[in-house]
Amino acid sequence: MTKENLFDNIRRKRSFLCIGLDSDIKKLPEHLLDNEDPVFEFNRTIVDYTNKYAVAYKPNIAFYESLGAEGWISLQKTVDYIREKYPDIFLIADAKRGDIGNTSRLYARAFFENMDFDAVTVAPYMGEDSVGPFLEYEDKWVILLALTSNRGADDFQYYPGSGRSLYTEVINKSASWAGSDSMMYVVGATRAEMLAGIRESVPGHFLLIPGVGAQGGSLDEVVKYGMNDKCGLLVNSSRGIIFASSDRQFGEAAAEKAAVIQKQMETHLVTRGLV
Amino acid sequence: MTKENLFDNIRRKRSFLCIGLDSDIKKLPEHLLDNEDPVFEFNRTIVDYTNKYAVAYKPNIAFYESLGAEGWISLQKTVDYIREKYPDIFLIADAKRGDIGNTSRLYARAFFENMDFDAVTVAPYMGEDSVGPFLEYEDKWVILLALTSNRGADDFQYYPGSGRSLYTEVINKSASWAGSDSMMYVVGATRAEMLAGIRESVPGHFLLIPGVGAQGGSLDEVVKYGMNDKCGLLVNSSRGIIFASSDRQFGEAAAEKAAVIQKQMETHLVTRGLV
Repeated sequence: MTKENLFDNIRRKRSFLCIGLDSDIKKLPEHLLDNEDPVFEFNRTIVDYTNKYAVAYKPNIAFYESLGAEGWISLQKTVDYIREKYPDIFLIADAKRGDIGNTSRLYARAFFENMDFDAVTVAPYMGEDSVGPFLEYEDKWVILLALTSNRGADDFQYYPGSGRSLYTEVINKSASWAGSDSMMYVVGATRAEMLAGIRESVPGHFLLIPGVGAQGGSLDEVVKYGMNDKCGLLVNSSRGIIFASSDRQFGEAAAEKAAVIQKQMETHLVTRGLV
Repeated sequence: MTKENLFDNIRRKRSFLCIGLDSDIKKLPEHLLDNEDPVFEFNRTIVDYTNKYAVAYKPNIAFYESLGAEGWISLQKTVDYIREKYPDIFLIADAKRGDIGNTSRLYARAFFENMDFDAVTVAPYMGEDSVGPFLEYEDKWVILLALTSNRGADDFQYYPGSGRSLYTEVINKSASWAGSDSMMYVVGATRAEMLAGIRESVPGHFLLIPGVGAQGGSLDEVVKYGMNDKCGLLVNSSRGIIFASSDRQFGEAAAEKAAVIQKQMETHLVTRGLV
């Protein structure tokens, strides 16, 4: 998907919501467990009920990988289902991969060829040749970890304590590897005040923002510091939407939660004159 | 496996060789492709022929993941086969995972519970809570990326240019998260001259050294700067061994290559008085 397509979808749906498919089998509604593939059934229902409020879905690969080969089948079915039924959805593999070139090439094959994801999250520690293979696919995206929303972000991402932090160096250096039409950055909502500085470094890039909701980040703050003239934001919510209810009406419950966020997003888009 | 067990195996086999199972289906001997599970057949043959020269095997997870669910089945079968037939082998999942705590917990489940690996390689960028879940398993190991062997290592691992490099900060800080009985570090052989400094920071830790052979690192240099009184080294070779031949005698060819390296390692162990 191109950047322009993504912005069009945001305007049409009046939403920049990404829904995280962190479909933990231990948290699925009990009545689904008799199903042949409970994880896929869950995902399909969530997507059917919420897709009009969201422009992107983000399966967290660990949740599938922890189920072995069966998990990979559920993931593949989920991707195929969304691709066929909702072709305008931006699909993110939240995999946080990254290895030497010939190995990253295989991860890229897994997510961009075997499965038709639009984007993969990548860890920057191993540098340019670990990221490059993901950038060789037309209209596919790397979403590079910059500043994450967890406590451990403090350990290395701000290094060194004074001067330019590592996360800034990651953004500045990687911005020369690819433009805003094939690279995005992960920036945790719990670090919203840092968004202003990041926007100076990469004014045109989309940012994927986890940590709104369960992890405590504020949508208003994110918009205030992070929105640009093409929106430039994908804000993710996972548990708060997909596990809104564990009864038979879990799809409706998820849709209600997603609709509330979409309304807030719409207000911001209107205020900024983007819709 | 405990550190003492690992050292015992090194002394008994007179080897600190780790063989990388980078079992690229595009490089397998052609006669295997008729097989129901060519990757597993290849791995089984390689392991049967080479296990007396090696103390560890390291499947590179990307090569399996790039085959989808089938790849995960091949991987599971490989792990089960090695576990049952060669219980003294140290098994490393070269996965370079790392995510927020609740997600790393699922990756740990995938590699330590579903599959009985001894160790997982982990990327440090997201800090302590991304590494911690892997450390909660008794006698299991985290092998943290410190200084990798690829060109892109220069992009961030030496940051800042002056003063203490990021990779040194990663080692020093993470050494407080776990001791040398559950943490190792990846240090590329192409950076052997850095090993002396690393040994000062973590004198007792094992180091996993990729990049000997195909990537140009020298075993003599690695031993000179990296060996300690419990050996403290696992030196990996992948393509140079497993793809030594693509004919029907590929197992024997791999064994010959592994035997040459084992002999060199034995000489070093004898010289240092460790066997």
